[in-house]
Amino acid sequence: MSVPSGVEGFDRVVDGGLPEGRLYVVCGPPGSGKTTFSAQFIAAGATADERCLFISMHESRDDIARDMAGYEFGFDDALDSGRVTFLDAFSSDGQRFFGMPGDRRDTGSITNRITSFVDSRDVDRVVIDSTMLLRYFTDDDDGTMIRFLSALKRTDATTFLISEMTDPRAYADEHYLAHGVVFFHNYMDDGEMRRGVQVVKMRGRDVDTDIHDLRFTPAGLVVDAPETAAR
Amino acid sequence: MSVPSGVEGFDRVVDGGLPEGRLYVVCGPPGSGKTTFSAQFIAAGATADERCLFISMHESRDDIARDMAGYEFGFDDALDSGRVTFLDAFSSDGQRFFGMPGDRRDTGSITNRITSFVDSRDVDRVVIDSTMLLRYFTDDDDGTMIRFLSALKRTDATTFLISEMTDPRAYADEHYLAHGVVFFHNYMDDGEMRRGVQVVKMRGRDVDTDIHDLRFTPAGLVVDAPETAAR
Amino acid sequence: MSVPSGVEGFDRVVDGGLPEGRLYVVCGPPGSGKTTFSAQFIAAGATADERCLFISMHESRDDIARDMAGYEFGFDDALDSGRVTFLDAFSSDGQRFFGMPGDRRDTGSITNRITSFVDSRDVDRVVIDSTMLLRYFTDDDDGTMIRFLSALKRTDATTFLISEMTDPRAYADEHYLAHGVVFFHNYMDDGEMRRGVQVVKMRGRDVDTDIHDLRFTPAGLVVDAPETAAR
Amino acid sequence: MSVPSGVEGFDRVVDGGLPEGRLYVVCGPPGSGKTTFSAQFIAAGATADERCLFISMHESRDDIARDMAGYEFGFDDALDSGRVTFLDAFSSDGQRFFGMPGDRRDTGSITNRITSFVDSRDVDRVVIDSTMLLRYFTDDDDGTMIRFLSALKRTDATTFLISEMTDPRAYADEHYLAHGVVFFHNYMDDGEMRRGVQVVKMRGRDVDTDIHDLRFTPAGLVVDAPETAAR
Amino acid sequence: MSVPSGVEGFDRVVDGGLPEGRLYVVCGPPGSGKTTFSAQFIAAGATADERCLFISMHESRDDIARDMAGYEFGFDDALDSGRVTFLDAFSSDGQRFFGMPGDRRDTGSITNRITSFVDSRDVDRVVIDSTMLLRYFTDDDDGTMIRFLSALKRTDATTFLISEMTDPRAYADEHYLAHGVVFFHNYMDDGEMRRGVQVVKMRGRDVDTDIHDLRFTPAGLVVDAPETAAR
Amino acid sequence: MSVPSGVEGFDRVVDGGLPEGRLYVVCGPPGSGKTTFSAQFIAAGATADERCLFISMHESRDDIARDMAGYEFGFDDALDSGRVTFLDAFSSDGQRFFGMPGDRRDTGSITNRITSFVDSRDVDRVVIDSTMLLRYFTDDDDGTMIRFLSALKRTDATTFLISEMTDPRAYADEHYLAHGVVFFHNYMDDGEMRRGVQVVKMRGRDVDTDIHDLRFTPAGLVVDAPETAAR
Repeated sequence: MSVPSGVEGFDRVVDGGLPEGRLYVVCGPPGSGKTTFSAQFIAAGATADERCLFISMHESRDDIARDMAGYEFGFDDALDSGRVTFLDAFSSDGQRFFGMPGDRRDTGSITNRITSFVDSRDVDRVVIDSTMLLRYFTDDDDGTMIRFLSALKRTDATTFLISEMTDPRAYADEHYLAHGVVFFHNYMDDGEMRRGVQVVKMRGRDVDTDIHDLRFTPAGLVVDAPETAAR
Repeated sequence: MSVPSGVEGFDRVVDGGLPEGRLYVVCGPPGSGKTTFSAQFIAAGATADERCLFISMHESRDDIARDMAGYEFGFDDALDSGRVTFLDAFSSDGQRFFGMPGDRRDTGSITNRITSFVDSRDVDRVVIDSTMLLRYFTDDDDGTMIRFLSALKRTDATTFLISEMTDPRAYADEHYLAHGVVFFHNYMDDGEMRRGVQVVKMRGRDVDTDIHDLRFTPAGLVVDAPETAAR
Repeated sequence: MSVPSGVEGFDRVVDGGLPEGRLYVVCGPPGSGKTTFSAQFIAAGATADERCLFISMHESRDDIARDMAGYEFGFDDALDSGRVTFLDAFSSDGQRFFGMPGDRRDTGSITNRITSFVDSRDVDRVVIDSTMLLRYFTDDDDGTMIRFLSALKRTDATTFLISEMTDPRAYADEHYLAHGVVFFHNYMDDGEMRRGVQVVKMRGRDVDTDIHDLRFTPAGLVVDAPETAAR
Repeated sequence: MSVPSGVEGFDRVVDGGLPEGRLYVVCGPPGSGKTTFSAQFIAAGATADERCLFISMHESRDDIARDMAGYEFGFDDALDSGRVTFLDAFSSDGQRFFGMPGDRRDTGSITNRITSFVDSRDVDRVVIDSTMLLRYFTDDDDGTMIRFLSALKRTDATTFLISEMTDPRAYADEHYLAHGVVFFHNYMDDGEMRRGVQVVKMRGRDVDTDIHDLRFTPAGLVVDAPETAAR
Repeated sequence: MSVPSGVEGFDRVVDGGLPEGRLYVVCGPPGSGKTTFSAQFIAAGATADERCLFISMHESRDDIARDMAGYEFGFDDALDSGRVTFLDAFSSDGQRFFGMPGDRRDTGSITNRITSFVDSRDVDRVVIDSTMLLRYFTDDDDGTMIRFLSALKRTDATTFLISEMTDPRAYADEHYLAHGVVFFHNYMDDGEMRRGVQVVKMRGRDVDTDIHDLRFTPAGLVVDAPETAAR
Repeated sequence: MSVPSGVEGFDRVVDGGLPEGRLYVVCGPPGSGKTTFSAQFIAAGATADERCLFISMHESRDDIARDMAGYEFGFDDALDSGRVTFLDAFSSDGQRFFGMPGDRRDTGSITNRITSFVDSRDVDRVVIDSTMLLRYFTDDDDGTMIRFLSALKRTDATTFLISEMTDPRAYADEHYLAHGVVFFHNYMDDGEMRRGVQVVKMRGRDVDTDIHDLRFTPAGLVVDAPETAAR
């Protein structure tokens, strides 16, 4: 089954929606739209009465509510609906969940806490913003990302894992481990900065891998994909 | 003797099929078709009543079955045929085989378990998805990949080892150690993403080393190689 | 609410001013205008009777006063207004605040000293020049920048953190953690060096991400953004 | 005195043959022809009734015999002639010679074993496939390659040392230490992959350093160098 | 107040001379003119009866005297005037000052020795050739350069610190810490090597940041900047 | 005073010859002519009845004699003249001088042995082939090259230090420390490999920094510099 992304035009790129229960890595440079994309995904879930979890290293609940208040996709309503658990990693709730900053735990315990939460509450949609969480709360080694993603892939939730990249020319383990990879692009075109989105990988589906224009509109992010984009 | 790859058009690129009993490294960026290519290779083996082993770090048996269900090359029938052993490295079977995640073993023991399995059961086709297995389950050093590939090369099976690459401009030890190397390419051509496949190495055979177009079709991956591709 | 930047033309780029109470990373090559930009930001605050804090690794109070004396935006008046606390990290005051050079402290204590100062005195505008402060006064590790920025984001002040970059092609953690990122550019255009400013990220606001010309004038830095720059 | 390489056209590039008793580094990307080139060199030696040693990390005797069986330069006859000692580093003979995999020895002992063998049996031609041998069997440090090549240079044999390269843009110590360096190239030319060979260094001889086309033919590798190639 | 550089044409680039009492980093590839530029700066100081200090890792007093003897800017007279202290880091005087080679001291003590000398003797102009001094005489770490430059900036002297660069595409800490940065360029133009000088940073002054031609003449280095170069 | 280089055309590039008693770094890719250039320099010295020292990591006396036998510049006569001490670092003489391979000494003792030899025997010309000597015989650290070159610069000999480079785009400490730097180039020009030589640095002399064609001729290397090359 397919899950609607909540982003106008995007579902056409992935041939009707995101395969359910899978793990998607969302990556791109700073300011490229990764968080807004994820917020629309959560809002669409809450609207459909699904259970949602949003874990953030970057935003408090108040900050993200304020950031998304300018858009009409109803993120505020989602937060108030009782369907969305928002976990700010630096709040006191967050610290109970992940440990005190600087008091590093092993990947296993953080992974277990997230997957137990997801499994025990039948969470449908998860956003984790971002992989920086692993570098901050665990003693990061070669196996950390492998272990973390492999566990997330085994839950029943449809999960977005936001991934920062320092070197845009290289691939990372999470790109290989995820079921799907969505890149957000900022690129110069004729002296002007343009935005784009590209699905470079989607297991089990022959998706459209071209770069499509992405616009911020009052309704949130909109992808300019033709009706017949997916091949 | 040559082994049919199960991918339409590909055998023309390698002059009639893959030399039997050899080790092939299959590499490319995320989403380039490495896993589908390997699944077609296994399906072709099961159809020909050969014994097959598919080891995966990336997919559960259910996930890969679902991913390949959209294609008509019969991967589901292969899984059900009794000819294919599918080993999910993160399942409880996988953990008995490779050890608990985080409980690192030496390369020798993992190598022995795989080669013993292959030798004792006369396995004909092996897929290992992917080299990330070594980084995860062993204390990876300079000799790990050398030892692992050298042992795999000595079995009688025809083996695909999927290799992730972070820096597409560099060669790795596995490219030098394998009998053959197949690259999957995603490249921009006139503003559009195109797929290609290229055999950069095939010991003992003068293969066609050009990049050939690769398409996802209902029948699975298809290579657009002319009838006279191999020189 | 929006905070005027104090830089002519810049507020048009960010759709009317900087969202209040947020953390902005200001980065660019040596000599690109980061410090002058920050001084104008502080002068605008002092003029509006706001409380300001300027922490510098790079300049003594006398040096920066002399540097800005050639401009008419009134930095000297700001320093004399009693509204601005200028903390030179290498002065005796600075050493009491941050510790003796070479006598490294943990990030936590430096972060606490800054945020306590900001919170207890209701500081409205903060400039930290620069992230080199962390490398110098703390035992820098992966978590240092994450911890430092996360704490700064939680104060009520509008904060500029100046960030040096050694490799202009890579992104750094602070670009992902900040609410906004402003890049200063020096680029060759037809054999001549030109200056530009670009807002690559501004959470919760669809800013103009083009590069706009930047000029040093007697009034300080001026951005050549059209009246309708923000979209 | 000059030694015929056994590769049609190549001796014209090096002004009549390879200076005798010297060490040549043969490098290039995977699948570029390094092993076939070396096999022709050994076959030419056996035909001329010279004593030959072929040490391989990559191939068993059976594998290389099968690989070369498609060519008419007589490698099989060479192996059967009694003039060629083939040492497979992973065979039981190989392990007696180099030690068990993982049971690392110092460079000195491996170097001594090879040079003693060469000296005591008056070996005329040596192929070592490849420098990976050092990384695998010794604790590789800065001095390993220097020590190994310096010892090989002092034997009377004409030696080919195959060298893998990960970064094609950089030079390695072995390129500076060898008497000669032969590069194999795979390059795109007008949308097609072409092969080439280039002698970048040959002490004591002013060789032709251009890239010459290289073809796989039934007779083995053939270099398209004009009769007057060497200057 | 402004200090004349002693280099014809250069003062026009920096709007009338170098701001007094500040620290300038002078960098560029080998042979680009950094030392000659610095020697002219010292000669101009001695002529104006200022006290000068020239610290060199690279030249003995005799060597530099001989090198500059071919120019007419009077470096020999400067050395003989009694106004210039020349300290050769490898002479016995240098070793008393900096310690024996190999007998590494901490940055603090070397920094103190230089700043005490400058302060106690009211030195007006300092040249330090080069930052290699820190790598050689101290246990170089992240804080070394920060500590050293911050101390030099606090003296009353106008200081040139020559900085070698290995990667011309990257910025270094000293470029951010200095009051000004002067780059010397060697670049190919139409098949010919040309020299240029560029002021990329000058705190408190809106300098001309274009690259200007630089020539070696009998009078020493001459910058081809128009009379109206500074804007 | 100037020393003739022994290479036809080269002295015109450096305005009449190499300044005497100085240290020159000679660098370039493998096979670019560094050793032949150095051999001509030694032959010119022996002809002029000067005392010469040639230290080699790369060649035995016999090998280099044979390599240079094809040229008419008289290297063999030089070796036989009694004016040239040839020290092969891997011969038994070399091992007495530098220590057994693997038996690493500190830079100081190797430096002292070379400079004592040069000073006590009034050596006029020295060639050290190459900096690999330091990496092999000493525990190489940041200070090794600085210490070694600084000591060599203080002898009265005119010295060539051959330097290998792995990354042709970066500068190394020895380029900054030497009195002069000579680069040998191999470059593709219209599909053909060409040779060139370029003096990028020569303290105290305004040399011609263009790339000049370099040819191997029966007389040895010849530089195609016009009579009026030096400016």
